[in-house]
Amino acid sequence: MDKIALDKLNAGSEDDFVRALGDVFEHTPGLARAVYAKRPFGSLGALYEAMESAVRGQSRDEQVRLLQAHPDLAGKAARAGTLTADSKAEQSSAGLDQLSEDEYTRFHKLNEEYRKKFGIPFIVCVRRHGRDSILREFDRRLGNDAATEEKAALTEVLRIAALRLDQRVSATDRLKVNGRLSTHVLDVHSGRPAQGIAVELLTVPRSGPPVVLARALTNADGRTEKPLLADQPIPIAAYELRFSVGPYFATKDIKLADPPFLDTIPLRFSVAEPEGHYHVPLLLTPWGYSTYRGS
Amino acid sequence: MDKIALDKLNAGSEDDFVRALGDVFEHTPGLARAVYAKRPFGSLGALYEAMESAVRGQSRDEQVRLLQAHPDLAGKAARAGTLTADSKAEQSSAGLDQLSEDEYTRFHKLNEEYRKKFGIPFIVCVRRHGRDSILREFDRRLGNDAATEEKAALTEVLRIAALRLDQRVSATDRLKVNGRLSTHVLDVHSGRPAQGIAVELLTVPRSGPPVVLARALTNADGRTEKPLLADQPIPIAAYELRFSVGPYFATKDIKLADPPFLDTIPLRFSVAEPEGHYHVPLLLTPWGYSTYRGS
Amino acid sequence: MDKIALDKLNAGSEDDFVRALGDVFEHTPGLARAVYAKRPFGSLGALYEAMESAVRGQSRDEQVRLLQAHPDLAGKAARAGTLTADSKAEQSSAGLDQLSEDEYTRFHKLNEEYRKKFGIPFIVCVRRHGRDSILREFDRRLGNDAATEEKAALTEVLRIAALRLDQRVSATDRLKVNGRLSTHVLDVHSGRPAQGIAVELLTVPRSGPPVVLARALTNADGRTEKPLLADQPIPIAAYELRFSVGPYFATKDIKLADPPFLDTIPLRFSVAEPEGHYHVPLLLTPWGYSTYRGS
Amino acid sequence: MDKIALDKLNAGSEDDFVRALGDVFEHTPGLARAVYAKRPFGSLGALYEAMESAVRGQSRDEQVRLLQAHPDLAGKAARAGTLTADSKAEQSSAGLDQLSEDEYTRFHKLNEEYRKKFGIPFIVCVRRHGRDSILREFDRRLGNDAATEEKAALTEVLRIAALRLDQRVSATDRLKVNGRLSTHVLDVHSGRPAQGIAVELLTVPRSGPPVVLARALTNADGRTEKPLLADQPIPIAAYELRFSVGPYFATKDIKLADPPFLDTIPLRFSVAEPEGHYHVPLLLTPWGYSTYRGS
Repeated sequence: MDKIALDKLNAGSEDDFVRALGDVFEHTPGLARAVYAKRPFGSLGALYEAMESAVRGQSRDEQVRLLQAHPDLAGKAARAGTLTADSKAEQSSAGLDQLSEDEYTRFHKLNEEYRKKFGIPFIVCVRRHGRDSILREFDRRLGNDAATEEKAALTEVLRIAALRLDQRVSATDRLKVNGRLSTHVLDVHSGRPAQGIAVELLTVPRSGPPVVLARALTNADGRTEKPLLADQPIPIAAYELRFSVGPYFATKDIKLADPPFLDTIPLRFSVAEPEGHYHVPLLLTPWGYSTYRGS
Repeated sequence: MDKIALDKLNAGSEDDFVRALGDVFEHTPGLARAVYAKRPFGSLGALYEAMESAVRGQSRDEQVRLLQAHPDLAGKAARAGTLTADSKAEQSSAGLDQLSEDEYTRFHKLNEEYRKKFGIPFIVCVRRHGRDSILREFDRRLGNDAATEEKAALTEVLRIAALRLDQRVSATDRLKVNGRLSTHVLDVHSGRPAQGIAVELLTVPRSGPPVVLARALTNADGRTEKPLLADQPIPIAAYELRFSVGPYFATKDIKLADPPFLDTIPLRFSVAEPEGHYHVPLLLTPWGYSTYRGS
Repeated sequence: MDKIALDKLNAGSEDDFVRALGDVFEHTPGLARAVYAKRPFGSLGALYEAMESAVRGQSRDEQVRLLQAHPDLAGKAARAGTLTADSKAEQSSAGLDQLSEDEYTRFHKLNEEYRKKFGIPFIVCVRRHGRDSILREFDRRLGNDAATEEKAALTEVLRIAALRLDQRVSATDRLKVNGRLSTHVLDVHSGRPAQGIAVELLTVPRSGPPVVLARALTNADGRTEKPLLADQPIPIAAYELRFSVGPYFATKDIKLADPPFLDTIPLRFSVAEPEGHYHVPLLLTPWGYSTYRGS
Repeated sequence: MDKIALDKLNAGSEDDFVRALGDVFEHTPGLARAVYAKRPFGSLGALYEAMESAVRGQSRDEQVRLLQAHPDLAGKAARAGTLTADSKAEQSSAGLDQLSEDEYTRFHKLNEEYRKKFGIPFIVCVRRHGRDSILREFDRRLGNDAATEEKAALTEVLRIAALRLDQRVSATDRLKVNGRLSTHVLDVHSGRPAQGIAVELLTVPRSGPPVVLARALTNADGRTEKPLLADQPIPIAAYELRFSVGPYFATKDIKLADPPFLDTIPLRFSVAEPEGHYHVPLLLTPWGYSTYRGS
């Protein structure tokens, strides 16, 4: 989807404004309409703050209605295909559109339990989570009291809105809603960046097979041309980087064991801050390696 | 099986000697009988050398008969249950008794091809190999000429004999037929050996799921009570060590991410020298680690 | 010294041009004058290439005169204060203006020997070398034959010219005559860049005490605000980085030994490529560290 | 000095016993005489415990006399050559016999101050300390109150006695009074222990030049034949290990920089537990290295 320029929004009509931003808050275009009056916005940050103020300024009843306007996660609306375009894309990003029957049943039960306790749907900014993490959040938040949970739900609504806004509007600034996951490989055997190493990034769910998210080749700097993940929150989840170092060393003039001591090197780690920068490098020789969370 | 003391063999009758060692060479007790005359043996090494000399001193016809006395790998004898006790144990050690129908067919075809080319069964000291490695050897040796291959087969026969001898006879010395695979974990965060970390050792075949070979807990020295593999050749294969470091750091007074950056750490490497010492340590903090082939 | 813009040189008179660049080649303004005719120059690189062509196009006699126009290293001209401004600055950069009587004598003897053998002064681009490295070059080049050595001397003359040019003229491009030496510190104990660590860079001559070249404090990224050395060739020499990690960890809530295991960490390494990028990071816990030549 | 066997002490006369052990407590043979009655001792540990009990069982007056029987550190007795043989050896182990005039004056002043405050000489088990550490202890203990300090002094008297006992008497057990400092070098470039690397161990005093304590060459296991320090307490002090890795890599078939990136590698660390095991290994490639406190 092409982004719309902030300048254009500042200069446009109220209807254009609401057409562009009305669905930043699920089924609640009134919030965009209220914010229109505050134009012009000097930055995307200022626009977001106006939207946050509009939500915080709502009465409690209005806020509850806003929360209730959200669909269940992996719920009936998803199955029936009646989600908003945003919700559909978000839920599929976390793989919630590909649950097994068992998982669907588990989500259904948790949704029921949550609605029964709090009277609202379970809302979470799914782009910030992997499937295991969503289930963990479900469990954790079911233990909250109602007041705490209303606050938590509103926080998630604002996270969702910030992400939608950041993806929809272009400006000279960005909202701090995205993280980055990158790597680089240093060949400490030759004292040079390791060029030409195939790298895979996978998510490793607690059950079920790992899923490849990105593939890349290291360049002359030992880096991949672009970060493995960027311009998005890095979902809270377990990941594995896999480096094909056997083929790399095989092209060098080095005496190796047969089979070589190191062939595919897996690095497994978890992301806990979706907006963080995760740089996970590999320092490599044919006989050993190091890794660490870098910066 | 209890070992028999070298002293006892030195002092015993020829029949006792042949009863004990007759099957060190497959279906060829004559070799043990020939060696009996050379008693007494000052060491297991001396006994083995006498046996090797007996084989090397055979005529070419005798040697070919010795080679032909061996069963096929994963062949009809294995299926029919007519292997010698030694061969049965050896073939099952490499998982050759648990092949899928496809794999059985592949072995069958290779056996046929090999017999047709060389007129002898394919002989390999299977205790030194994982399944992938045996297939690789098959491919590699099918490319040999007949003279080279007869030599190679004889080398394998002697490796098999050395292993059988080392397991059967106790003496003050051992034959250099065994390797060792060990690990230890150093907590570089606290400057101490890491105690209480659960470690798993698995083989990682090219196809099919990894198989757990050993489980252990690190002790106050950061080591496992005994090596993960010892007193045997370490089969040529790919391995993975898995360290449960998440639960370890959770018991310390440390600020960790949630989920922790490191939880299960996999180290993947291959063994190329079955008689080698593979010490693969883990130097650990909550945010990074190193490994290398140590000594 | 303020740089002069390439555009201005392109637009100026021949006299201005020669006034600005006449001493890029020692006592040989005729080369600049010859190059003036080739204006305009689209880049600094193009200007340098024109100057190089002018030198390469000289007759052998002219080239020998150019070589002979250079002063001795640490020679009488230096003592008498009759060096050109450029030569004076260059020789002092390598500490050649601060030799002990013994060292002066050694240089004097080498100069004599060299002049006697080759009939020209010993020329080396001293900004690319530490004092030990200059002496090593002296020894090495005294072993050359005359033809090889004339070529080597000319190469040095061009290196000197390129450096003078790069420092004197501003353009959109730079000549590839400079290197960089930098560091950063990662605290693998807390998974964060280490902020507030005092870092010193010293040269470590073979004899005599180390000399501090730069001091800096690591910032929130674990880096120093600017590279420790940049915008210059990194002299071929031995260096030591010193990191005050004791005071850093003392401010953290960590149980340390008393005295702490690590206090000042020295990293010693040599630079061999003056135009290279030397990134020498420190990965740190209170009980261990790693370093490597990074990129 | 040859050790005397515990058995012999158990079987010998009271006079022999006192002749052998009378000076374990400075100028106080009565303690050994009192302990003689408790024979036989099943172990060196039991003998030490009897001696400790004898001291703890003394009246306060006797204990103060015992403390007062000790000489000043680096005091007049040392200068006049009237120390007991034990005290002389101990003080010289910490270099207290080689103080500059300034340092002697500083010790003299601290001695005076201490005696004035507590009425006893400053007693410390000097074999457990370097010179800087003794001065630090002096400062620290001058801040104590009298009761705390009498206890501290008695603890030091017992440490001195344990060390003298352990060095004088042979038995099947040893007292836990000694530490160990060792290293090994692993060449992660070739996956093998690094053989033939020259290693130096130095103490690095706060002022004054480092002093070489030990020199060794790594063997085929990458270790030195024996620990660099053992069979003694490791004095609390700063140390530096220096590894000559340039010459090592020069013998290998490796493309190195000229000069090589790594030549002499210094590892600097402090010992805080004289009875501890300090294993400080070096994991090495031509372009980087790691170290850590190992086990």
